[in-house]
Amino acid sequence: MDLIVRGGTVVTAAETYQADIGIEGEQIVAITRHLDGPRVLDATDRYVLPGAIDAHVHLELTLGDLTSSDDFVTGSIAAACGGTTTIIDFAESKRQHSLRDTLAERRGLADGRTVVDYGLHVSLLDAEAATLAEIPQLIRMGCPTFKLYMAYENSWLDDGQIWAILSTLAEQGGLPIVHCENHHVIARLIERFRAEGKVEPRYHPLSRPAVMEGEATGRAIDLARSTGCPTYIVHVSCKEALARIREARGRGQPVYGETCPQYLLLTEKEYLRPGFEGAKYVMSPPARTLADNDALWTALAKGELQVVSTDHCPFFYRGQKERGLEDFSLIPGGIPGVETRLALLYHYGVRRGRLSLQQWVAACCSNPACIFGLSPRKGQIAVGSDADLVIFDPQREVTLRARRLHQHVDYTPYEGRAVRGYPLHVLSRGELIVEHGEFIGKQGRGRFLMRERIRQGYTGLSLHLF
Amino acid sequence: MDLIVRGGTVVTAAETYQADIGIEGEQIVAITRHLDGPRVLDATDRYVLPGAIDAHVHLELTLGDLTSSDDFVTGSIAAACGGTTTIIDFAESKRQHSLRDTLAERRGLADGRTVVDYGLHVSLLDAEAATLAEIPQLIRMGCPTFKLYMAYENSWLDDGQIWAILSTLAEQGGLPIVHCENHHVIARLIERFRAEGKVEPRYHPLSRPAVMEGEATGRAIDLARSTGCPTYIVHVSCKEALARIREARGRGQPVYGETCPQYLLLTEKEYLRPGFEGAKYVMSPPARTLADNDALWTALAKGELQVVSTDHCPFFYRGQKERGLEDFSLIPGGIPGVETRLALLYHYGVRRGRLSLQQWVAACCSNPACIFGLSPRKGQIAVGSDADLVIFDPQREVTLRARRLHQHVDYTPYEGRAVRGYPLHVLSRGELIVEHGEFIGKQGRGRFLMRERIRQGYTGLSLHLF
Amino acid sequence: MDLIVRGGTVVTAAETYQADIGIEGEQIVAITRHLDGPRVLDATDRYVLPGAIDAHVHLELTLGDLTSSDDFVTGSIAAACGGTTTIIDFAESKRQHSLRDTLAERRGLADGRTVVDYGLHVSLLDAEAATLAEIPQLIRMGCPTFKLYMAYENSWLDDGQIWAILSTLAEQGGLPIVHCENHHVIARLIERFRAEGKVEPRYHPLSRPAVMEGEATGRAIDLARSTGCPTYIVHVSCKEALARIREARGRGQPVYGETCPQYLLLTEKEYLRPGFEGAKYVMSPPARTLADNDALWTALAKGELQVVSTDHCPFFYRGQKERGLEDFSLIPGGIPGVETRLALLYHYGVRRGRLSLQQWVAACCSNPACIFGLSPRKGQIAVGSDADLVIFDPQREVTLRARRLHQHVDYTPYEGRAVRGYPLHVLSRGELIVEHGEFIGKQGRGRFLMRERIRQGYTGLSLHLF
Amino acid sequence: MDLIVRGGTVVTAAETYQADIGIEGEQIVAITRHLDGPRVLDATDRYVLPGAIDAHVHLELTLGDLTSSDDFVTGSIAAACGGTTTIIDFAESKRQHSLRDTLAERRGLADGRTVVDYGLHVSLLDAEAATLAEIPQLIRMGCPTFKLYMAYENSWLDDGQIWAILSTLAEQGGLPIVHCENHHVIARLIERFRAEGKVEPRYHPLSRPAVMEGEATGRAIDLARSTGCPTYIVHVSCKEALARIREARGRGQPVYGETCPQYLLLTEKEYLRPGFEGAKYVMSPPARTLADNDALWTALAKGELQVVSTDHCPFFYRGQKERGLEDFSLIPGGIPGVETRLALLYHYGVRRGRLSLQQWVAACCSNPACIFGLSPRKGQIAVGSDADLVIFDPQREVTLRARRLHQHVDYTPYEGRAVRGYPLHVLSRGELIVEHGEFIGKQGRGRFLMRERIRQGYTGLSLHLF
Repeated sequence: MDLIVRGGTVVTAAETYQADIGIEGEQIVAITRHLDGPRVLDATDRYVLPGAIDAHVHLELTLGDLTSSDDFVTGSIAAACGGTTTIIDFAESKRQHSLRDTLAERRGLADGRTVVDYGLHVSLLDAEAATLAEIPQLIRMGCPTFKLYMAYENSWLDDGQIWAILSTLAEQGGLPIVHCENHHVIARLIERFRAEGKVEPRYHPLSRPAVMEGEATGRAIDLARSTGCPTYIVHVSCKEALARIREARGRGQPVYGETCPQYLLLTEKEYLRPGFEGAKYVMSPPARTLADNDALWTALAKGELQVVSTDHCPFFYRGQKERGLEDFSLIPGGIPGVETRLALLYHYGVRRGRLSLQQWVAACCSNPACIFGLSPRKGQIAVGSDADLVIFDPQREVTLRARRLHQHVDYTPYEGRAVRGYPLHVLSRGELIVEHGEFIGKQGRGRFLMRERIRQGYTGLSLHLF
Repeated sequence: MDLIVRGGTVVTAAETYQADIGIEGEQIVAITRHLDGPRVLDATDRYVLPGAIDAHVHLELTLGDLTSSDDFVTGSIAAACGGTTTIIDFAESKRQHSLRDTLAERRGLADGRTVVDYGLHVSLLDAEAATLAEIPQLIRMGCPTFKLYMAYENSWLDDGQIWAILSTLAEQGGLPIVHCENHHVIARLIERFRAEGKVEPRYHPLSRPAVMEGEATGRAIDLARSTGCPTYIVHVSCKEALARIREARGRGQPVYGETCPQYLLLTEKEYLRPGFEGAKYVMSPPARTLADNDALWTALAKGELQVVSTDHCPFFYRGQKERGLEDFSLIPGGIPGVETRLALLYHYGVRRGRLSLQQWVAACCSNPACIFGLSPRKGQIAVGSDADLVIFDPQREVTLRARRLHQHVDYTPYEGRAVRGYPLHVLSRGELIVEHGEFIGKQGRGRFLMRERIRQGYTGLSLHLF
Repeated sequence: MDLIVRGGTVVTAAETYQADIGIEGEQIVAITRHLDGPRVLDATDRYVLPGAIDAHVHLELTLGDLTSSDDFVTGSIAAACGGTTTIIDFAESKRQHSLRDTLAERRGLADGRTVVDYGLHVSLLDAEAATLAEIPQLIRMGCPTFKLYMAYENSWLDDGQIWAILSTLAEQGGLPIVHCENHHVIARLIERFRAEGKVEPRYHPLSRPAVMEGEATGRAIDLARSTGCPTYIVHVSCKEALARIREARGRGQPVYGETCPQYLLLTEKEYLRPGFEGAKYVMSPPARTLADNDALWTALAKGELQVVSTDHCPFFYRGQKERGLEDFSLIPGGIPGVETRLALLYHYGVRRGRLSLQQWVAACCSNPACIFGLSPRKGQIAVGSDADLVIFDPQREVTLRARRLHQHVDYTPYEGRAVRGYPLHVLSRGELIVEHGEFIGKQGRGRFLMRERIRQGYTGLSLHLF
Repeated sequence: MDLIVRGGTVVTAAETYQADIGIEGEQIVAITRHLDGPRVLDATDRYVLPGAIDAHVHLELTLGDLTSSDDFVTGSIAAACGGTTTIIDFAESKRQHSLRDTLAERRGLADGRTVVDYGLHVSLLDAEAATLAEIPQLIRMGCPTFKLYMAYENSWLDDGQIWAILSTLAEQGGLPIVHCENHHVIARLIERFRAEGKVEPRYHPLSRPAVMEGEATGRAIDLARSTGCPTYIVHVSCKEALARIREARGRGQPVYGETCPQYLLLTEKEYLRPGFEGAKYVMSPPARTLADNDALWTALAKGELQVVSTDHCPFFYRGQKERGLEDFSLIPGGIPGVETRLALLYHYGVRRGRLSLQQWVAACCSNPACIFGLSPRKGQIAVGSDADLVIFDPQREVTLRARRLHQHVDYTPYEGRAVRGYPLHVLSRGELIVEHGEFIGKQGRGRFLMRERIRQGYTGLSLHLF
């Protein structure tokens, strides 16, 4: 065997046990009591997890004349250092541009640069016949998941367009992943606040009310119900949205929900920070209340939400966020997070008794693999799966500081928080790419992942999803 | 290695993958791509599951002057042939008898006779100070789970007794497992039917209404809530009981629910069979309606119920069930089932698309281990776990016939049903005890299982339980 | 006293009792045991109800180059003959037209022609600053209720517009009355059916799914919640919409719901009638299923819905409905009903045990008065209230036939149905305008009703609304 | 006419209007604009309500060797002074005593002594055949409502007994009114507290947990459901019980709920008062939390609860309550309240915006009449109804003091509270019995009320009940 991970405590979505893991080439080939070989990685007193999957990241995203600050190189290195060995980014459509070209261009940008494996969701901006006609081909090209926006001036779809897209996805085995906020109401609120001279960051959350996130979530779910399409709701931030998801799942509708560390750990109080500091927390939807944080933790523990991703989309505070100094609505939205997810969820989730080890691994590693067509290759520790492994040290204490993290951005929303439990080594397809917290891999070693058509209905998915 | 299970498809509560399994002594020591050794069991094209756990069986149960027809020998052989490598039976208390003596006597009957490993729940008939004082000791003796009856003339407890017992269990780390029906209402109904000359088996289900099973389930849950004790509801048969469990879990109360194949597959129509045939289906609670069957399947798929056990408690139709020829209330209650559970759940659950492979394994193997303090030793396929394995042939067709089954009883409620998918070989602690469907092990090889104190709350349990 | 209604059984939303009613001028001045006077109307063995209020009628509504077939004369005579002494019609806005002008024009059309008193809702087609600025004035002019459409090509409002309007109404004491269907989805479905050559009336209901009526209802409720505005949902047709209303009221949100006889009594099967007959039932939303009928009856009985109105909007089958012979989407939508409501609700509601006498009067007479600012003048039998009274003969049998009804249209959806219980005499402001079922009043005697600002919150409304 | 109530604002469960009321003999014969006659009672600027009905009082109740301190004379005078013109007391059964005798004896005690009209509920202590056989006769004797206790050592019924009684009542048109607490759990808790020396009043509420009131309420509802019997739940004190009632009514089960001022206005903090003061608040169920108060107000406003009664059962603090100085479980349970209900509900309900005038009258006057078979004679202001009227002065300010109230007891739980709005004059069957707050009637003028068989199902009841 090429490499042996020895002495660790293996943690999967179902079990915790002591075993050595043997790797040949890029795959796990053995999980046994005692393994020996020429190359051994010691995991004594550490957890060995499946490499984490971040199903929602935006690297070098173009937003007007700005670009999110992490590119495929820096962003994927940060991911790796944080224990994430698979990212799913977005091929954002352009109008009057074929989806295949969009996909090819995005792959052109990522291939040869990412350091971990990656997949792509494709966003849709219209429901023209030509667009819908490309969907089957995209699915065959390994992109069965499509991002739909219900908000943002340049990307919101009307309900008829969503309906038409979902009808097509239902037929073709695609999965919509939906940003649920109400564009028109937000536009009115922003307009009103600007007219009243309310331009500070604190007006950002007030312009995107939780009730209307709940509304849009319910609308997406009803559109899915009426077309027979499964649905995945991204970045759930509030109780109102959660209630709609719970209700739909209660009647057996295949709806999945994702939240992010920022919605579990931050609140609207961040926007009240002195000066322009609140801008660091501007993202959509915004951070909500402590009660929402609690409701989201509980929903994760009960399996009402299945996935924790990051929506990583960093912009420099200096120079980029400052675009909105005179007008909160011009602050580029998004925060960094791809590197800190696994540690934050362990510290605030597992250590505080809100999640079991299994729930932690399910939300960060296994469930995204099941839902996004990466299973059994990713998301589990099993013979035949890719040897994507995290050697996680539950005792390692790290104080989060922007300057020490690998994310290419001048702040972290968690600055100064001390967490206990952190990734130590990371393997990607059998290769040690992070050692003692530092990236040692090669740029461009990451591969594009051909993902499978989405299997519909309950029964194709593991129990822990329902 | 002593034995290698080669070429199978491993199915656990979380994953499905191809691997060989290596066994040394009684434990799994390796899960690898290709293993070789002197002794190999071929599992090509078969599923390899964790040995199933039946957490609810009554072998040689004394009921007045009758005894249930399977003893620890025949019953545990039948279990083994059906893929069940762990059973949990009951040490039924007697009045004026210490619980330790009860336990010692029951172990005296089982030790040296069972062919698979076994645990014991202890039933409680009162809440006297002396009884409650014995509970900590019983938990230390490996029996942390206590059966409480809310029905049956000689065993029902009043709510004050249940409250006192639950208060003690909450303190001591015990888990009550509760039979939820309303004794007094049933007694009134039986009395009324008898007075009206309604003595045929068809009056049995009418004497035990679903609404009052729901009532008792809600009552047990409220008693648990008011004492802070986790609770396990046995043999849930109807929507009304399910609703109470769902509601409790929805507010975060640690309540677990079990159903049985008979409640998933049989209905009240069985009681209308000609002659005395209905007596074969007399059990408590009775089979309900198709709508209840459906609701139970859905609840299993959603994880609202966690366990499928059998409540195996067979009586011969001839001679035993016939005791009630003149009076349905004298028919000894209970049906056989320990042998057919895994195959029925695969055929009607997995094959019909109601359950995934993972849900099947979770309900029959993994969840009972988590809930009843047998994890990580039983219920999973992992290095270090007991080598209890089922080689399950998904293509094997078997027509269920009482005369071909190993259960010691003259009928099966599933007579003539053809199922596809059946256990082929079974290993218990590394020993091949069933080969090609026939028992080849030694009587008495089964061991008493010291079970662990119950870990309370969500977070100690795997995600798939919530 | 000018007139005495003698010997009847008075039925109000709260009570049933025997009394004579004395009228002076236009008002009730006495309710006593035995009254005498020069002019007596015998009501022995009859019910005496408050004149019914139909809060939702469209008389001489312009739809492109068609006009609904009942004008203010014929329509209000039909209303009177059916026991309805107050109607609320609509001043439908035109673009680039002030609302005051719209109101003035509509009053110009109705004044001097209606035979019963009437009010006007004002519809809004945009949320321009100028439009919103007119709202306070309209409220002062007696029109505090505003119709918003979420469907129809030429009248749907986007969510931002609705949000802006509701914000204004919340401040000003106006009440939005909302048509809840999803315009964009309907447009897509119609387009698809037409493209597939599916042009018969049977495709009409398929183009307007119940799930999306539920969606739009939920959206209107969420918009109301986020602006703090009370809301009235018109013509609820299905369980999905009902669920949203129930949920909102359950959390204390002031939401009111209306249904119509057609949603209580007709189903989607009507659209399958041979030939073009289905066109007679084309309305929006369409008739749904028996299960929806039942759910609506139950919701009325429980007070989850508060009002039964008619959405009376008749078109001749010959010549008008036939516009859509080649394309169901061109069939003018709407059915007649202003004349038959009270009798249908008595026959199918009270006589069949689904509603009490009190519930019948509440839904048809009293609740609309409370909600729409007509109380205490209309909707009750009390000293000082207008002497609008219906002498209802519970034994009178009438077979509904278009040719015998006073509605100006060539069909009734209830053709041939025999009902028992029918209005006999009707008084409006003390004047006998219907005698033995025939109109004897004068054209133009109806007056415009200045309605009051809407009182928000629970406590200003009678108990029976919540 | 014999008497005219002139110039008042009439308030009923449905309407508010200005009118004079004319009375002949014992009945209302006219409600008119201007009435004149020889005898006039001025009601200018006052509300005129239907005489209130207190459906739950215990006068001279025997509890061991104690008797509740208000007898039929003093208690009914207090009722009258508080605006209550009808009380329903209890004929408490004795074992080995026919129900008819019990009824006759109780009537023997009340007749010739009460000053307002009264009815009697009959309590049942067993479900023996002889007892059940008497039920039809009692209904014919005007007592169609039967009290069942699920708590109290000497009166609790087991579930089989309740089931048998409800089966009989369902057939006969009787209504069970049920005290829902769990006897056995309470007994255990009291025993435990006593054993631990926890004997102060503060342990009283801890011995009767809200969760177990919810449990018993659910059990009563399930027993009613399984027998097809309507049910009335007395003195609902907590959210848990409310949830069960809401759920049952949601599925259409005819369940009614009552609360009392003490559960709307007092909390468990009263039991923490210094010394033995807490004993003044000892009643069952106990006062709960502020959150429960709020939930009960909301439930009243929504019609989820229908009735406010008092459970008036006073004991002197000195001499009587003091029985429990050494042991809270010996404190006689019950508090005074028959006199203060209407004023408290007006002040804290109507004036604080929690109830409308109509809801106040419905809960205190009209609904009890509908539910308990007193309609149309009592509970409404209508021609032909008894002239039971309260002239209520909304501006009158009264500071509640035990020494000024007419209740025969040495304290009031509301001592020192200033309320605004109080009964001024009270008429009972046309007779002025309270003038300017003082009783001027004759002892023994009250009559026994023959109440009607209970009409089952929704539709016989007024809308405002559902």
